[in-house]
Amino acid sequence: MITLHTWTTPNGRKPLILLEELAVPYDIVPVNIGKDEQFRPEFLKLSPNNKIPAILDDEAEGGPLSLFESGAILTYLADKYGRFLAPSGAARWQATQWLHWQIGGLGPMLGQLGFFAKQDDAFALERFVKEADRLLTVLDTQLAGAQYVAGDDYTIADIACYTWIIAAGERLKDTLGDRLDKPDLQRWLALVGARPAVRKGMAWKPRGV
Amino acid sequence: MITLHTWTTPNGRKPLILLEELAVPYDIVPVNIGKDEQFRPEFLKLSPNNKIPAILDDEAEGGPLSLFESGAILTYLADKYGRFLAPSGAARWQATQWLHWQIGGLGPMLGQLGFFAKQDDAFALERFVKEADRLLTVLDTQLAGAQYVAGDDYTIADIACYTWIIAAGERLKDTLGDRLDKPDLQRWLALVGARPAVRKGMAWKPRGV
Repeated sequence: MITLHTWTTPNGRKPLILLEELAVPYDIVPVNIGKDEQFRPEFLKLSPNNKIPAILDDEAEGGPLSLFESGAILTYLADKYGRFLAPSGAARWQATQWLHWQIGGLGPMLGQLGFFAKQDDAFALERFVKEADRLLTVLDTQLAGAQYVAGDDYTIADIACYTWIIAAGERLKDTLGDRLDKPDLQRWLALVGARPAVRKGMAWKPRGV
Repeated sequence: MITLHTWTTPNGRKPLILLEELAVPYDIVPVNIGKDEQFRPEFLKLSPNNKIPAILDDEAEGGPLSLFESGAILTYLADKYGRFLAPSGAARWQATQWLHWQIGGLGPMLGQLGFFAKQDDAFALERFVKEADRLLTVLDTQLAGAQYVAGDDYTIADIACYTWIIAAGERLKDTLGDRLDKPDLQRWLALVGARPAVRKGMAWKPRGV
């Protein structure tokens, strides 16, 4: 069984969506980052970088496996169950490159934008607005030539980008203005957002929060 | 044959080091980012995100394959040649999670620190100094319990982290002060830095630059 330690953030929702897509049994352990639970010793054993999400798979090949970093978790689960990431060939590497683009670019830059949107630092804010718009334009251009982020098929690259763009639309609307109103980006958001597993993963809330 | 489009940056040196480790033939096409060559149409075809590195493998399974994002390129080459990343099991996923940690954390945060170190913005600078020190401490703690970043074996996670830590030591010494003087981090830098392929990859310079 997979145990997912997570919270209601863009990175935290990625494995939730994938586990729902895979329709495999899993347990959730909420890690309330508003209460600094990511610094608890039992969580740091799974994720020494003190970030959610992390998983423990007690039925992994070779013995129990714990894993942190949302992109590594998505890749592991997709490979384990043989879905949403081709096992080899161009389709695998196109999905992997766009996953890395989200992990190294879109995520960190929208994350910094989210931070500076609440600060009094116009210089830094302008930097991250500009970089976010550049990245959103790259994604929109890619989606003008492809149904999904990495081509014809829905993959973990879609899941990874989707949670961040939705969070940007919810939390950074005042900051980003019409920069999210790009036609192919919006077409793709509707397409991905209509999937039952995506709706379920995005709707998850821990009890009492 | 692999053609590597790259420059002398931390991300740009990663595939250089790996190709030297693999001892496979490759060509280099320098992309001078100081002259905005990453915006040339022929480069954007390989890397629509206008970032180096990118590769073209004209002997890939199923036909020529182009790939961008340094972490995706490292994973592709390691899998293609069956070295520096285990094909399955815990060792593969531990290397993958630390690779993602570099791609999504260490790289972007040191990158922003490099930018703000040259600006008059004390608030943002303090943020990225603090985050860089946190990440360097996470890595040092990991290396206190393991020979290499992901355990007993040298992997693409070492290559990914190494180029960034070296660049930080060269370019951010005044900003980071003694934050790089962590014992296991320094032991590991010496261990990795002694490898001939690493020395060759770090020493590469395009002609006339």
